[in-house]
Amino acid sequence: MIAVLVLNGPNLNLLGTRQPEVYGATTLAMIENACRSHGAGLGFEVTCAQSNSEGAMIDLIHAARGAQAGIVLNAGAYTHTSVALMDAIASVEVPTIEVHLSNIHAREAFRHQSYIAPVALGQIIGFGAHGYILALDALKAHLGGGT
Amino acid sequence: MIAVLVLNGPNLNLLGTRQPEVYGATTLAMIENACRSHGAGLGFEVTCAQSNSEGAMIDLIHAARGAQAGIVLNAGAYTHTSVALMDAIASVEVPTIEVHLSNIHAREAFRHQSYIAPVALGQIIGFGAHGYILALDALKAHLGGGT
Amino acid sequence: MIAVLVLNGPNLNLLGTRQPEVYGATTLAMIENACRSHGAGLGFEVTCAQSNSEGAMIDLIHAARGAQAGIVLNAGAYTHTSVALMDAIASVEVPTIEVHLSNIHAREAFRHQSYIAPVALGQIIGFGAHGYILALDALKAHLGGGT
Amino acid sequence: MIAVLVLNGPNLNLLGTRQPEVYGATTLAMIENACRSHGAGLGFEVTCAQSNSEGAMIDLIHAARGAQAGIVLNAGAYTHTSVALMDAIASVEVPTIEVHLSNIHAREAFRHQSYIAPVALGQIIGFGAHGYILALDALKAHLGGGT
Amino acid sequence: MIAVLVLNGPNLNLLGTRQPEVYGATTLAMIENACRSHGAGLGFEVTCAQSNSEGAMIDLIHAARGAQAGIVLNAGAYTHTSVALMDAIASVEVPTIEVHLSNIHAREAFRHQSYIAPVALGQIIGFGAHGYILALDALKAHLGGGT
Amino acid sequence: MIAVLVLNGPNLNLLGTRQPEVYGATTLAMIENACRSHGAGLGFEVTCAQSNSEGAMIDLIHAARGAQAGIVLNAGAYTHTSVALMDAIASVEVPTIEVHLSNIHAREAFRHQSYIAPVALGQIIGFGAHGYILALDALKAHLGGGT
Amino acid sequence: MIAVLVLNGPNLNLLGTRQPEVYGATTLAMIENACRSHGAGLGFEVTCAQSNSEGAMIDLIHAARGAQAGIVLNAGAYTHTSVALMDAIASVEVPTIEVHLSNIHAREAFRHQSYIAPVALGQIIGFGAHGYILALDALKAHLGGGT
Amino acid sequence: MIAVLVLNGPNLNLLGTRQPEVYGATTLAMIENACRSHGAGLGFEVTCAQSNSEGAMIDLIHAARGAQAGIVLNAGAYTHTSVALMDAIASVEVPTIEVHLSNIHAREAFRHQSYIAPVALGQIIGFGAHGYILALDALKAHLGGGT
Amino acid sequence: MIAVLVLNGPNLNLLGTRQPEVYGATTLAMIENACRSHGAGLGFEVTCAQSNSEGAMIDLIHAARGAQAGIVLNAGAYTHTSVALMDAIASVEVPTIEVHLSNIHAREAFRHQSYIAPVALGQIIGFGAHGYILALDALKAHLGGGT
Amino acid sequence: MIAVLVLNGPNLNLLGTRQPEVYGATTLAMIENACRSHGAGLGFEVTCAQSNSEGAMIDLIHAARGAQAGIVLNAGAYTHTSVALMDAIASVEVPTIEVHLSNIHAREAFRHQSYIAPVALGQIIGFGAHGYILALDALKAHLGGGT
Amino acid sequence: MIAVLVLNGPNLNLLGTRQPEVYGATTLAMIENACRSHGAGLGFEVTCAQSNSEGAMIDLIHAARGAQAGIVLNAGAYTHTSVALMDAIASVEVPTIEVHLSNIHAREAFRHQSYIAPVALGQIIGFGAHGYILALDALKAHLGGGT
Amino acid sequence: MIAVLVLNGPNLNLLGTRQPEVYGATTLAMIENACRSHGAGLGFEVTCAQSNSEGAMIDLIHAARGAQAGIVLNAGAYTHTSVALMDAIASVEVPTIEVHLSNIHAREAFRHQSYIAPVALGQIIGFGAHGYILALDALKAHLGGGT
Repeated sequence: MIAVLVLNGPNLNLLGTRQPEVYGATTLAMIENACRSHGAGLGFEVTCAQSNSEGAMIDLIHAARGAQAGIVLNAGAYTHTSVALMDAIASVEVPTIEVHLSNIHAREAFRHQSYIAPVALGQIIGFGAHGYILALDALKAHLGGGT
Repeated sequence: MIAVLVLNGPNLNLLGTRQPEVYGATTLAMIENACRSHGAGLGFEVTCAQSNSEGAMIDLIHAARGAQAGIVLNAGAYTHTSVALMDAIASVEVPTIEVHLSNIHAREAFRHQSYIAPVALGQIIGFGAHGYILALDALKAHLGGGT
Repeated sequence: MIAVLVLNGPNLNLLGTRQPEVYGATTLAMIENACRSHGAGLGFEVTCAQSNSEGAMIDLIHAARGAQAGIVLNAGAYTHTSVALMDAIASVEVPTIEVHLSNIHAREAFRHQSYIAPVALGQIIGFGAHGYILALDALKAHLGGGT
Repeated sequence: MIAVLVLNGPNLNLLGTRQPEVYGATTLAMIENACRSHGAGLGFEVTCAQSNSEGAMIDLIHAARGAQAGIVLNAGAYTHTSVALMDAIASVEVPTIEVHLSNIHAREAFRHQSYIAPVALGQIIGFGAHGYILALDALKAHLGGGT
Repeated sequence: MIAVLVLNGPNLNLLGTRQPEVYGATTLAMIENACRSHGAGLGFEVTCAQSNSEGAMIDLIHAARGAQAGIVLNAGAYTHTSVALMDAIASVEVPTIEVHLSNIHAREAFRHQSYIAPVALGQIIGFGAHGYILALDALKAHLGGGT
Repeated sequence: MIAVLVLNGPNLNLLGTRQPEVYGATTLAMIENACRSHGAGLGFEVTCAQSNSEGAMIDLIHAARGAQAGIVLNAGAYTHTSVALMDAIASVEVPTIEVHLSNIHAREAFRHQSYIAPVALGQIIGFGAHGYILALDALKAHLGGGT
Repeated sequence: MIAVLVLNGPNLNLLGTRQPEVYGATTLAMIENACRSHGAGLGFEVTCAQSNSEGAMIDLIHAARGAQAGIVLNAGAYTHTSVALMDAIASVEVPTIEVHLSNIHAREAFRHQSYIAPVALGQIIGFGAHGYILALDALKAHLGGGT
Repeated sequence: MIAVLVLNGPNLNLLGTRQPEVYGATTLAMIENACRSHGAGLGFEVTCAQSNSEGAMIDLIHAARGAQAGIVLNAGAYTHTSVALMDAIASVEVPTIEVHLSNIHAREAFRHQSYIAPVALGQIIGFGAHGYILALDALKAHLGGGT
Repeated sequence: MIAVLVLNGPNLNLLGTRQPEVYGATTLAMIENACRSHGAGLGFEVTCAQSNSEGAMIDLIHAARGAQAGIVLNAGAYTHTSVALMDAIASVEVPTIEVHLSNIHAREAFRHQSYIAPVALGQIIGFGAHGYILALDALKAHLGGGT
Repeated sequence: MIAVLVLNGPNLNLLGTRQPEVYGATTLAMIENACRSHGAGLGFEVTCAQSNSEGAMIDLIHAARGAQAGIVLNAGAYTHTSVALMDAIASVEVPTIEVHLSNIHAREAFRHQSYIAPVALGQIIGFGAHGYILALDALKAHLGGGT
Repeated sequence: MIAVLVLNGPNLNLLGTRQPEVYGATTLAMIENACRSHGAGLGFEVTCAQSNSEGAMIDLIHAARGAQAGIVLNAGAYTHTSVALMDAIASVEVPTIEVHLSNIHAREAFRHQSYIAPVALGQIIGFGAHGYILALDALKAHLGGGT
Repeated sequence: MIAVLVLNGPNLNLLGTRQPEVYGATTLAMIENACRSHGAGLGFEVTCAQSNSEGAMIDLIHAARGAQAGIVLNAGAYTHTSVALMDAIASVEVPTIEVHLSNIHAREAFRHQSYIAPVALGQIIGFGAHGYILALDALKAHLGGGT
């Protein structure tokens, strides 16, 4: 089994209860279960984590180096403000796929910019909770498997 | 009694000792005491908290959902940089009043922008420690009481 | 009794009839009555004025010098375009509190800038007609009384 | 007969004498006569007004509410600077057609922006004095008649 | 009879079926029929054309030189991006009137800029299908007739 | 079988021969075959098209209305400049997924902006040819099937 | 005697009492007397006027056409915001010299821009009340006399 | 003989008849003849093409790969707006020299930017029709011959 | 006699021969003679200098410290680009009056900015050669004499 | 012995293992040892700390007040985004020297801005690990010793 | 023989030794010899000059007036910063051709702007040392000879 | 002994006499003596030079190639405006350390940008005259010695 980290950032612990017209009714626990289950089918042992703290997220990314083969990252609002997360991803050299639940390009202008994007392998945006599943598929393909 | 959160952000623990020509000589403890006392007169049970950590502040705002009827928030320097705090306030849907001790519009240009303002109920800026008292009055009026 | 000026700017004469979903159903006369009444309780003799003319507003501010101890000012749309009002307030050196009924930071970008803010004592934004009451309280505190 | 206001702003009283290479030789009186005459043919009782004062123009627009069914407005230079006129038009909810004699998009960059445009029914630009006639036709069509 | 071109650009073939809340229910065929009919009354032989291709539109404008006395142009989205159309209009020196169905100044910021405007005779914006009729009237007046 | 359009824009006909260090060695034919094959497994009848012409791409999108249930679109360089394609997608109301082979956010600044993104269902960026497969999966999920 | 207008704008009626560290202790009456006296020596009959109203200033400039041979204008804060004053000066074609008491280029950035400057004959900035005297001398030289 | 493409973009078919004060009286046919003739003297077989369509120009550039040793390109107005042409040139890796008849840097600001320049071998700007001759000479030198 | 420096910058040695429609027919020698003569009448011993070199101008300004009581400076094009001249003027603390022959605010945008202005005593702009005379008068008044 | 804090920010714990072509092979432990050792020679008792959390760094800076005589700070990526760290440094009034290992001005544009710089004593940038040694020397000189 | 000036600016004396991967191995002396030799064949007596001083370059351009019939100018880095050189070229009215060895549009953004371009006859960019030869040819054609 | 150049730019010859509250009381001669003396202790033969001329500074930097092993450069105001100095440093490939006496990041915005920084080895800013000593130490370490 290949170890993979699914890391969610600030406010995503509220998923399913918060602004459902934007983010849908699925809770974070449901997403994490789906990731573990779908990942298992791909040969991935998926570890899930969430934090509202930029520093704690950096620590988790550092810990992934050598421990996990890939990261699926929804950095939430830190996407738009955190150079430190950008540096963390660039430093650990673990392939990272950026996911957003909603279409950030159809929202406020300050959400169109991502510090994560230039150092990520790729982006999957706007498909709701299903985006995590697509990201795991993309990671599988990147690490050498088919779909 | 109605539960209310008074939440202060980074560096506000230094109040009264830091740059008194800008922020005045009142300490944070004095402000918190005044809030609790004035709040009691309005029928509010005021809980006070301060943190220098963006993530910890988000946690406190999340915890306010269902527990407190309103938030008086001085987010300090995170006012100008934190999309994550903005999202937290929008998510929990607890009416939040933004307070600043000094007139942020008479200071450096980067302090004129607030990510909190668009999601707050309103702003009270420039009245020093008395701004917290006005914010509690405003919250009282908003929640259905008079002055 | 301490003399105080409550000055309203362009289009505020239409209050209560205009875009009530933004500004509420309260009329200007109701606000002015509330100001006079609440002000009396604070020891203020409140004079109310409204004008759609920038020049007339400047004249009223000039006349406040020596005649009134404070100004509560809702400059309406001139807030965003009038350097001349800014200069008038700076010139007369009468403490001035800026009030806005709606949350200008949740509206069009050009309404986020205020030429009044840097020369005002402080700002009270987004609390509807109650903002004038809070402004009178803030003025009272500034001039040396409690709430 | 349907009452209609034709309102001209700053410097338009000089029409026909001022920079004729830009604005043509027609005077404001000639335009107003043509509006009254052409309007009569459309079933409009046209009232004409001109002012160099932003405040006076706002007063005229306020007065149009309930009194006139439409406004043909050439706000002149206030087009580019007056948020207060914009608010006045939005407030009174009388359909307003913006007219400019010259092609403002072929002139200085600061004349390309119009605060009136977003709240107007439409714009007619660059056809000289004939633009007012077209605006009356457009108003007629909007209010329920054909040409 | 004077020959006139009514030229519509990208996506306008979908009129009447597309986003009717923005563009109305009138189809392009209805507009073209109205133009031909109203034009005939003005002594115009109106030729109508539509293309989704910037190059084809340029070809049609070139062909108008010497063949048609005026152009009524709704360049659709190319209005905001096409320097080549701007050059084509400037080159052929056939008087051109810019028309837009909706009020482009009340929509996204990138729709506020028009490369066509500086080289057009004038603009008629926001009157729906009736704007074409007004444009033909304006063209008639420009070419030497009254309304 | 559900009809789906896979539409590629300018220069993508050169895939596999052009700048392989950026876009990889896979040819457009290989991608189109993979789409047809993978699509068939999802119950999709995939039609593939490519054009270097903005106008022709608009025509193809118009034709998809009523004929196809979804579009996978790599608009190539028109992504960054074409308001007309944006309007076409918004007009036809066929769910559209934006794909890019390379990570456009790690390239020149002018490639970071997408006119397609705000009107697309979502974006899949940076996964090379595999991005089309992921887009078909995402479309399947959106249209009501699982992966 | 040649008639000349010395026109002062908003807040300049407060001169000598307002922010003397910026504008000096000289009152407007003293400046106007000096202008009349110095002007007389140059063969000028100097009329002085001041208004806080943009519209009234435009009226005064219009009235100068045919009545006065030159204008010395300190438009105060309207310098930075009034396109209408700019148009008035351009319209009447009376040579106008722009004066500012303080060095506007050593103050806030928004005071560096002048709408008056491009249509004025010239600018005299930063010499306090003496600037009006220099402006009259400059006007004398321009109208055909020496110093 | 070495095959070379001389490709002209939108509106250049009008050369000699359009705005001769800007572009001169030489027609496109004359330029193409001069290119063929001068090219022959350099050992070049010159093929000439012109199109008003961005897509057709891309097709011609693609076709040059393997068929022609160099391109002399005047992309006209597409110079300033077409990322797709930029990509086409970068893709085919045929050395391309950018030519402009007039000095684009002495015209409107939006003509100062060229998407072609960064991927071209070099630029020759402002020498009228003679610029094509210089470009052929430059291409000759680049491909290994002297002048 | 009080020593004063009149310093002219790049290209001003060409005065009278260069672009006379912009700068007039007066030569630099004529201006310098007029300065010496008018200065003598004010009790000034005027030294004149001109250089095309930024470094040489800085040397001359340094040399003025202690040697001259004031500087009349037309820094020509260095006005808009030289922080070093700005620093030189601020360093020597000799009162400096900035002069420009033409109205720089009616020319290209890059000529509207002056690095000299914030550190100068004042500016005299747009009066041609007479501006130097006015500057000497202004210097006289500043140093304690009348006109 | 004088107490001094050497504080490192996000991702600097990875030093020596992360992107050695940018940051070199020296580990953080080696730098901290060198600081302690070199500091001892200067009479400094050096305390070293590192955190990935902005809030924790603020806490450490607060704790330095009264406890340490100076701070050597490499705030890593927070340099470019943290107003809160800026406020913390300004608040505690402990002289702080900003250090960066690499030349931030030769990297991405967003790394050129430092919120730390305006409130720091000075900056030492681009000398790798040796920059900390230079910073301790600079601090020694500032606190009253020589090198 | 017609006199022509070939003028090179700062750092071009280092040509052939400096960054050969950008500028090639040809020395300035080789370029100057080639210019003299090729110029002689065109009937030009070519004078060559180089200076690192902006002021000295201006002096040389001034001296060219009346003495030389054309200038081939590579202003090096002053291209991007010198308004004074721009003015010098405009003043002397000697036709000037701007040359750059490398493709300045493929380098840093601040090298894309040229103050020389708007006042030059034309630009030849990116052809290395051969650009000077092309410039002499272009000058020949401009002055009335063929190639 | 290793030869090293200490080069100072415009206005630094005035050090110790100019604005001592910004730059301190130390003269340039004192700094140069300290550099020579401290340099000798490091095995450096330090040559000192100062010029107010950009061109002369470029000449000195060129001369350093092959003659000196390193440069300590305080380019003064040219830091912010001189692309030519930037090119000179990049050309000669002599390691260069940028020094500034005052904290340029705590001064006007135009002093925050440095054209020198991207091509320098590193920067030492804000330590007054001691910055030169630190720069020599840094150069020593860079060239292979310890402190």
